[in-house]
Amino acid sequence: MAAKKSSKVLEDLFLETLKDIYYAEKKLTKALPKMSKAAQSADLKKAFAKHAKETEGQVQRLEKVFAFLEKKPSGKMCPAINGLIEEGEEIMKDFKGSSAHDAGLLAAAQAVEHYEISRYGTLIAWAEELGWPDVATQLSATLTQEKQTDKDLSSLAVSDVNERAEKESA
Amino acid sequence: MAAKKSSKVLEDLFLETLKDIYYAEKKLTKALPKMSKAAQSADLKKAFAKHAKETEGQVQRLEKVFAFLEKKPSGKMCPAINGLIEEGEEIMKDFKGSSAHDAGLLAAAQAVEHYEISRYGTLIAWAEELGWPDVATQLSATLTQEKQTDKDLSSLAVSDVNERAEKESA
Repeated sequence: MAAKKSSKVLEDLFLETLKDIYYAEKKLTKALPKMSKAAQSADLKKAFAKHAKETEGQVQRLEKVFAFLEKKPSGKMCPAINGLIEEGEEIMKDFKGSSAHDAGLLAAAQAVEHYEISRYGTLIAWAEELGWPDVATQLSATLTQEKQTDKDLSSLAVSDVNERAEKESA
Repeated sequence: MAAKKSSKVLEDLFLETLKDIYYAEKKLTKALPKMSKAAQSADLKKAFAKHAKETEGQVQRLEKVFAFLEKKPSGKMCPAINGLIEEGEEIMKDFKGSSAHDAGLLAAAQAVEHYEISRYGTLIAWAEELGWPDVATQLSATLTQEKQTDKDLSSLAVSDVNERAEKESA
């Protein structure tokens, strides 16, 4: 590998964080279809299903990064994503059938997106420092998708609010 | 309380999420001084200490929101923040004394900030929907601080990179 020897320790940190987000994305490929199934609104169902599909592509991009580093893809238990997914599951259980169900589920999904945005932002900065532009490019493609998903969810949150308001005034 | 009866369920969701972030902020008033102590760079120590102080003010703002809702302030175990703090603790342990220690700690702190930014953004949107402008104002003051902290940490990350590069070329 081409990295400078003096950067070895940052390289370790990069690899740890890569394993962490790999674990997270793999978890999300399973969690997102469940969230899509649980969503009440057709638009939110569609948004989660679309992002589940994207997440599969993001897993593959991470596998390319592992290949670049000449490492076998492997995940490392990431307590943050487990906690974030757990919060989404709690909402699905506690607010099942309620008019606030989707608002809560959507908010939980946005918390996940923000976690990923933060992680990819960090990994891209480190990849650039380590002199790995190809890795930065792969990760940036995913970061763009995560930011777009967060924006899409924000738009859905607004339309959800309007829908609730219409029902209330009807 | 002034909320419309038809919004009761969103009100429940708001209260659940408020308890969640209250628990998180209280946890952070304890975690941030530890992170400040563990940081190697004087600037990062200072940034964490400043944010620890701010976090105490944020706890008080949340208590004002509980008072507005005529509820006693109480936290609800938030698995996401526990996971995020755990990741920071892991970094402090695994990278103790390494040149990448602060980079990892800083990244963990940014993941926490992103979580909070997402949570406060959601709570503000719901407060506005529920017709509670004073609550939205309180929460917005905190959101502004969280965003500024995230920016400050990003600047520190850049100067950390430069410092490491200088050491390597020395």
